[in-house]
Amino acid sequence: MHTTSEGEKPVFSACSQTRKLSNILACTLDLLPLGVRRAGRHPHLARAAVLGFVLGLILAVELGDRGGEEGWLGTPLLALLVIKQELVFSGMIGSGLCVFSKHPIQEIFQHVYSLNGYPYMFHHGDWFCGKSVGLLVLRLSGLVLNAYVTHLHAEYSRQKDIYFAHRVAQAWELAQFIHHTSKNADVVLLCGDLNMHPKDLGCCLLKEWTGLHDAFVETEDFKGSDDGCTMVPKNCYVSQQDLGPFPSGIRIDYVLYKAVSEFHVCCETLKTTTGCDPHSDKPFSDHEALMATLYVKHSPPQEDPCTACGPLERSDLISVLREARTELGLGIAKARWWAAFSGYVIVWGLSLLVLLCVLAAGEEAREVAIILCIPSVGLVLVAGAVYLFHKQEAKGLCRAQAEMLHVLTRETETQDRGSEPHLAYCLQQEGDRA
Amino acid sequence: MHTTSEGEKPVFSACSQTRKLSNILACTLDLLPLGVRRAGRHPHLARAAVLGFVLGLILAVELGDRGGEEGWLGTPLLALLVIKQELVFSGMIGSGLCVFSKHPIQEIFQHVYSLNGYPYMFHHGDWFCGKSVGLLVLRLSGLVLNAYVTHLHAEYSRQKDIYFAHRVAQAWELAQFIHHTSKNADVVLLCGDLNMHPKDLGCCLLKEWTGLHDAFVETEDFKGSDDGCTMVPKNCYVSQQDLGPFPSGIRIDYVLYKAVSEFHVCCETLKTTTGCDPHSDKPFSDHEALMATLYVKHSPPQEDPCTACGPLERSDLISVLREARTELGLGIAKARWWAAFSGYVIVWGLSLLVLLCVLAAGEEAREVAIILCIPSVGLVLVAGAVYLFHKQEAKGLCRAQAEMLHVLTRETETQDRGSEPHLAYCLQQEGDRA
Repeated sequence: MHTTSEGEKPVFSACSQTRKLSNILACTLDLLPLGVRRAGRHPHLARAAVLGFVLGLILAVELGDRGGEEGWLGTPLLALLVIKQELVFSGMIGSGLCVFSKHPIQEIFQHVYSLNGYPYMFHHGDWFCGKSVGLLVLRLSGLVLNAYVTHLHAEYSRQKDIYFAHRVAQAWELAQFIHHTSKNADVVLLCGDLNMHPKDLGCCLLKEWTGLHDAFVETEDFKGSDDGCTMVPKNCYVSQQDLGPFPSGIRIDYVLYKAVSEFHVCCETLKTTTGCDPHSDKPFSDHEALMATLYVKHSPPQEDPCTACGPLERSDLISVLREARTELGLGIAKARWWAAFSGYVIVWGLSLLVLLCVLAAGEEAREVAIILCIPSVGLVLVAGAVYLFHKQEAKGLCRAQAEMLHVLTRETETQDRGSEPHLAYCLQQEGDRA
Repeated sequence: MHTTSEGEKPVFSACSQTRKLSNILACTLDLLPLGVRRAGRHPHLARAAVLGFVLGLILAVELGDRGGEEGWLGTPLLALLVIKQELVFSGMIGSGLCVFSKHPIQEIFQHVYSLNGYPYMFHHGDWFCGKSVGLLVLRLSGLVLNAYVTHLHAEYSRQKDIYFAHRVAQAWELAQFIHHTSKNADVVLLCGDLNMHPKDLGCCLLKEWTGLHDAFVETEDFKGSDDGCTMVPKNCYVSQQDLGPFPSGIRIDYVLYKAVSEFHVCCETLKTTTGCDPHSDKPFSDHEALMATLYVKHSPPQEDPCTACGPLERSDLISVLREARTELGLGIAKARWWAAFSGYVIVWGLSLLVLLCVLAAGEEAREVAIILCIPSVGLVLVAGAVYLFHKQEAKGLCRAQAEMLHVLTRETETQDRGSEPHLAYCLQQEGDRA
């Protein structure tokens, strides 16, 4: 793990090839669920766009539905200010992922999470957004930067979290997406609202499998809310109900990073807003914005990626993968139970319909039978949709579990071979590449 | 473009560092829709597994639902024969992607296509399969091989193809997935049932954006069915109706490949089965199997990827991207029309329900009103589901269109700068990486 402890600091300053990447600001514009009028968000967005132009890169989530299609982004003033802005949509409402960058964006790609809550949970609405991860490839001072922006499923109840397995599966999909698409990148940056506490299973899984470092943990220069919280009670949009058993605040928005090839990256400063905005009555959003300054330098040979997957890290990864597989197993069992239950409801509903038709054909209770047909038809249709949905859910969870099992098997085999053969394997791999 | 023409052949044989990758067999086990009993497929699969062990690598599609979960793959005999087999599932029925490999598989990842037909087209059933692309990372003789296996949405009518936009979007997602996940690979291999003819828009889009070469076009040594067709009239599972306006056969299964880094790959031989199996009464499947032998060699500097994106290739890519954007635009308009139509049906159905409730409250036509409530409830529920589905469809198509626009803008800018600045840009990029 790279740290910015006193002992290592001289290595950074001693390096003559230090390159400053850019100031990076990640903010969550989360005003839609708070009932703020669409027009009311425009000044916030305009300020975000201007900041993107001045600072370098803003990765935002929850822009809402049509801001970019026909909203203020098309105005000539902002077209002048924002050198390059990208909007990535998914789902019915739109995932609202949005990027403002003063550096030209080389490539974009989006991966929609295959599991994202339940369509019948209308009041939560996450399913309708189609949560996803957006990838942007940028070139800064000759470095290839893969910037990822994402927003995972919200946690509505910490005690009884019905979306837990989905969030773990999303974290795994995100980790796999980053792992497989960042192999040629010099620097990887992930910003977004993960809707997970730092020690949550999904968060650990993401960090262990991708090797990403948490800017809040790594930096020596942090300014902002206590414990880096991004949902704080001081924010006028946040209620005590939102914070649940954490009245002093929670940290669910992150800046995570790593250097992949011969580079090393460290977080020099990290700032958060603190619940109120000095320039306006209302804060940016119900989530505090994060701003990180990252430095990149050439890495000495001993800091290559091979050393990052030592026995200790491997053991942590194995342990978190086992736990995640168990949780997904519980999710699969629940999904199968719902599929079976709705299957029975379909059979029961169809039988009831037949019975009601027979009753309706007779004279007695004819009217009651016809009236009861109405909810029965609705029941069969809804149960059919629920059956299909939970069958798909179980398959999606099985897929994530199978991918985890593959990694787990490989990692356990490597661990069993011991650390010396592992190093030999790493060296052989490096030799092959040379 | 790499070719195997006479003029270039000496370059291959002159190279002392030629390395044989492996024999690669791609076969489509497509027996499920033909009503063949599940048990009847086992001998075919067992043979495929044995062939995978003997030859190297088999990438198969349409394995069906539960073959790997509780079927024959768990038997001890096959566990001994198949050194490494991987099963990747998605969707309700399962996409049926399956790989048999004698080389250890380093990593696996799957991307489920966000658009894949319509759930209300029960009789086609593609939506329920959850079509996807599977990625396998293998290490062969020190080379990193990214093998992709996929199965796109079927074309049920060439004249009136309601899935055309979906297939183009799938081809784009596939191309993007390969483009972004193969940057560190030495060799890229794609096998599968693309359900597209060689000159179809989706196929051109895939080849132009990824730079993949078609084994059938590139090889000098082809043995098999006429024109490399993989659905032939001689096959007892294929009817003339399946072939439509192409009675002599169609080519919809492919082996595509490219070398990414300092390597060059060529297809030495390509074989297909010819509609009948010498060892059995019935052929493997309704699709003919393909077997390709690929050779890999170190590439001289002048053959680097930079020269592959010359003005001619760029112009082809721009033209195919424009056409694809137009087709997706038509798909978006259609999806929005259906969403609007189902929206009107919901409003109309709800109004009808209110009217029927009023009528039911009175004495006249009470019974008729209650009976009519039943289809009205069903209508509103079904229209609601259709509305949600087509809103999501339009967003998915918009996303693909936006990604295409990004590539198109960048490619057009590069083309406008002319070939000399382009070369300078390429050289600068290479300089940056060095």
